[in-house]
Amino acid sequence: MKNLLVNLVDKNKKYTEEGFLASYIPALLKANKDDLGIYVVDIKNNEEYWAGECDVKFTIQSISKVVGLIIALSDNGRDAVFKKVNVEPTGMGFNSIVNLEIRDEKPYNPMINAGAIVTTSLIYGETEERKLERILNFIRRATNNEDINVNQEIYESEKETGDRNRSLAYFMKSNGILEGNVEEVLDLYFKQCSIEVTAKDLARFGAVIANDGITPWGNEVLMSREVCRIVKTIMVTCGMYDASGEFAVQVGIPAKSGVGGGILATVPRRYGIGIYGPALDQKGNSIGGIHVLKNLSEELELSIF
Amino acid sequence: MKNLLVNLVDKNKKYTEEGFLASYIPALLKANKDDLGIYVVDIKNNEEYWAGECDVKFTIQSISKVVGLIIALSDNGRDAVFKKVNVEPTGMGFNSIVNLEIRDEKPYNPMINAGAIVTTSLIYGETEERKLERILNFIRRATNNEDINVNQEIYESEKETGDRNRSLAYFMKSNGILEGNVEEVLDLYFKQCSIEVTAKDLARFGAVIANDGITPWGNEVLMSREVCRIVKTIMVTCGMYDASGEFAVQVGIPAKSGVGGGILATVPRRYGIGIYGPALDQKGNSIGGIHVLKNLSEELELSIF
Amino acid sequence: MKNLLVNLVDKNKKYTEEGFLASYIPALLKANKDDLGIYVVDIKNNEEYWAGECDVKFTIQSISKVVGLIIALSDNGRDAVFKKVNVEPTGMGFNSIVNLEIRDEKPYNPMINAGAIVTTSLIYGETEERKLERILNFIRRATNNEDINVNQEIYESEKETGDRNRSLAYFMKSNGILEGNVEEVLDLYFKQCSIEVTAKDLARFGAVIANDGITPWGNEVLMSREVCRIVKTIMVTCGMYDASGEFAVQVGIPAKSGVGGGILATVPRRYGIGIYGPALDQKGNSIGGIHVLKNLSEELELSIF
Amino acid sequence: MKNLLVNLVDKNKKYTEEGFLASYIPALLKANKDDLGIYVVDIKNNEEYWAGECDVKFTIQSISKVVGLIIALSDNGRDAVFKKVNVEPTGMGFNSIVNLEIRDEKPYNPMINAGAIVTTSLIYGETEERKLERILNFIRRATNNEDINVNQEIYESEKETGDRNRSLAYFMKSNGILEGNVEEVLDLYFKQCSIEVTAKDLARFGAVIANDGITPWGNEVLMSREVCRIVKTIMVTCGMYDASGEFAVQVGIPAKSGVGGGILATVPRRYGIGIYGPALDQKGNSIGGIHVLKNLSEELELSIF
Repeated sequence: MKNLLVNLVDKNKKYTEEGFLASYIPALLKANKDDLGIYVVDIKNNEEYWAGECDVKFTIQSISKVVGLIIALSDNGRDAVFKKVNVEPTGMGFNSIVNLEIRDEKPYNPMINAGAIVTTSLIYGETEERKLERILNFIRRATNNEDINVNQEIYESEKETGDRNRSLAYFMKSNGILEGNVEEVLDLYFKQCSIEVTAKDLARFGAVIANDGITPWGNEVLMSREVCRIVKTIMVTCGMYDASGEFAVQVGIPAKSGVGGGILATVPRRYGIGIYGPALDQKGNSIGGIHVLKNLSEELELSIF
Repeated sequence: MKNLLVNLVDKNKKYTEEGFLASYIPALLKANKDDLGIYVVDIKNNEEYWAGECDVKFTIQSISKVVGLIIALSDNGRDAVFKKVNVEPTGMGFNSIVNLEIRDEKPYNPMINAGAIVTTSLIYGETEERKLERILNFIRRATNNEDINVNQEIYESEKETGDRNRSLAYFMKSNGILEGNVEEVLDLYFKQCSIEVTAKDLARFGAVIANDGITPWGNEVLMSREVCRIVKTIMVTCGMYDASGEFAVQVGIPAKSGVGGGILATVPRRYGIGIYGPALDQKGNSIGGIHVLKNLSEELELSIF
Repeated sequence: MKNLLVNLVDKNKKYTEEGFLASYIPALLKANKDDLGIYVVDIKNNEEYWAGECDVKFTIQSISKVVGLIIALSDNGRDAVFKKVNVEPTGMGFNSIVNLEIRDEKPYNPMINAGAIVTTSLIYGETEERKLERILNFIRRATNNEDINVNQEIYESEKETGDRNRSLAYFMKSNGILEGNVEEVLDLYFKQCSIEVTAKDLARFGAVIANDGITPWGNEVLMSREVCRIVKTIMVTCGMYDASGEFAVQVGIPAKSGVGGGILATVPRRYGIGIYGPALDQKGNSIGGIHVLKNLSEELELSIF
Repeated sequence: MKNLLVNLVDKNKKYTEEGFLASYIPALLKANKDDLGIYVVDIKNNEEYWAGECDVKFTIQSISKVVGLIIALSDNGRDAVFKKVNVEPTGMGFNSIVNLEIRDEKPYNPMINAGAIVTTSLIYGETEERKLERILNFIRRATNNEDINVNQEIYESEKETGDRNRSLAYFMKSNGILEGNVEEVLDLYFKQCSIEVTAKDLARFGAVIANDGITPWGNEVLMSREVCRIVKTIMVTCGMYDASGEFAVQVGIPAKSGVGGGILATVPRRYGIGIYGPALDQKGNSIGGIHVLKNLSEELELSIF
């Protein structure tokens, strides 16, 4: 496995040249465009394998949508959550507002910004601080890493440049989908997107999902089996922005990407996988990471289909 | 003329029953649904005629978009304004955000909310107070009425329920169309919408526009002839929400309506007309007012076409 | 006037270089891109003035939408026509099908393809031949030119490449807006678009419209005053594709353009104007023609606003 | 298993009352709204189980999209097919044309009408008859039923009322996505939709897909493993119209429905499932069938997620 990973990183490193770094926040441009790493946790024996840059920290960005969904489902139950957000994939972009106006007042799904803002608003907690604590606590346990935290610089930039998200949130506030104080919800959302992780952290989180919600290293139950199943389903249908359908055909495993360059992937009952590669393709997914996952899926027959 | 107006109000009063009051703000529901009034200023001899409720105060609402456009054009010149907002009519609703996303980053025209928020943002003034003062001062001179002011209760409600406008504004902020502090621009916009007028006030404002920008009562120049021409043009193509085309065919004069029940209309070189009738049709225009204007246009051959 | 026209053509000829010829049909590319002509009929004295290429034949294309609308209104009355097609302007393109699906089953207005296919379908006549004869007869009388005819080569190309129009027509057939045999309606529509005219012909047609529907040369009534008024209104709000609003602000007269390079324009109670200039701008309007009209409107104060 | 199926049909029969029969073709209204049947093929031992109406014939309708996709992929290879049609899910309706105009010239996926018309156009064959023969031959082998044929009455009705599909096809013809003779492609498409099957037939077809493309009863290879995997993936992401995402969350198996009341479902390496229940829900899926599948998935843990 170790050799396979090394080979795949070598072979696909060239694609990073064609990619581009996320640039809407200056701090994201500090990433090293060449970086490409993959980390795999085999849940059968709890062995770990890796290749490339697996200890570089980056912000979780959209991958936090998975976290928000898990906690919102666990807190509120499936019916309450899906009363506020649909689970239909959409071929439109992740921050489209047309989706909200043309068809339905509910966001299409929890993997687009509008939907994730809603799930974040549904997380329990008396105060914003308490809610953030619960999010951080979940991620720390799911990654077996107590040092997980918010990157303050990125958070401040997100907040400063977050007007499109503000637009989405006020739109949903105006039609009753979003409740509570908009700026507070957004603040929590921006913090959640600014949590720092490594490819290793993501691989462990993926291992928990692959293991039906239970940590392979400590047998701690982090989510119910049903929540775990729902999350995997939505990752497949909506996890890779508007390239989700193509990724399902080519790779065929539940995954979620973020513009920080991370990909969280999970092969049910087999592997948790974490990718880091900040060079993105046109859809906003790690360009090298997609290629590595495609090859890995072919080699090991990972597709669930 | 006086008799004609009385007859037209009598004849069309019945339509007010089919209409509905604007209800997004509780205070607007206090209006008397039966009210219907028309006030006409004949600019040739500066004579005034009226029938029905012409001294009832109501908020100017979308008619303020004409004011914002006039001041923005006078302050910045036509090119600077139209770099930020198009002048194309749209068949879509007044608060549509689809318009912004699908086609162009610029709002379609200054008579929809998005466009009016932009023109308001372009009004000169060191402080928000100063800008409001300039708006009020303009309306006071254009109506020959020093008592014009903001209705504080309505303003506060507008501000409280203005999330859809916030959504539009943050969207435009995110793509660079709207500059400055969003909440301050919106605050001014909400105040401007909450200015109270009567049908009589609107008729006088209409008379100024009919008279190429000069007050018929005092020969004061309130806007250049070019600004006046542009404003009349945009009133024809976009003034009556998504019923503008139909109104142009049926009535054929520059006009702008507001959900407070007012209509500002102007017959070039002949009349200024003010309507008050808070019962609205499906498109948000005064239902009795539209019928009165249609009949009046037929009787006096007012259509500019 | 003659000198003015010559100067305006000279001054604006340079813009033809920036334009492009319509290319969806090979035969349209045979046009001489440099050509630019304007022909003016002064209806007060029935004098005619011109400059540039005013005898070059070209196909009427979308200007035929005005003809179809006039005949459909005269045949069916205003209510019957507007039950099938709206009169709202649209900021979207002339061949957009989104308009049909998102908002309303009726086409936005008779100046976009969908709407014009509908008005053509409403023209009376036992057979397709008879309907075409009536169209040709109308144009011949409106241009005082018995030689007007269909360009067979262009017609055949239109028919061959008309799949987008077929798509629009079958869409409207499927929702009941369009009645009768789709291919027959389209055939008539393609023929109507392929009628050949000159700038002189268009100027005379414009003079009839400027003269309330009566030929200035023979006092023949070609349409009722009401039909004439409606047509002028719709030309202002929707005549120049999705640049109609801008044209209204800059020029301010009823006009309709075609991708053959023609513009039919009319100044109520003053002038009929015909333009030929096959070099088009991005919106599909004659680029030189728009500039000439803009200057002419400024010089002679032609804006109706 | 037999008992389980009988119980599930009994339990869910009540939902058929809330459903409605497809009505765009009169012949479809002849179906018995109460009917509800499920047929299961266990591929491990090639045992078959059923309950309810499993021998009633009905037209395959949209389920034929799976057939068209399989043959197009086998004939042309994956790259050639996906150059003409995307594989992204869309939250919009199955016959939306907005999809084609707003975003991309390629249809979103092969499970919406536009996409299926394209895949049908890609099927090899010298003549239309030969292509139909190949389609029928495929289905006969996949269902182990030599009697499969086109329902002539339904086919003729489809053809007669197929204007929306004509609109889609001409749209794609106009932008180069669809090649060849539009009416011929549509004729084949309408015939393919009018093929008659039973729940039993669908179950066997599902068994072939569950068995990686090989008939469990005769070990005949009907499609490559890769084609089989792609088809299952697209069934999951796009198979149940705009309820695909919800079905994936609730049931979690590859499935495709048709407005004739059929559902083809497949549980990889375990079962082929056929449903018949002509009472449809708002999305066009068999209302009783969806409930039966949901219960069955919960009972037997069929979700692939």
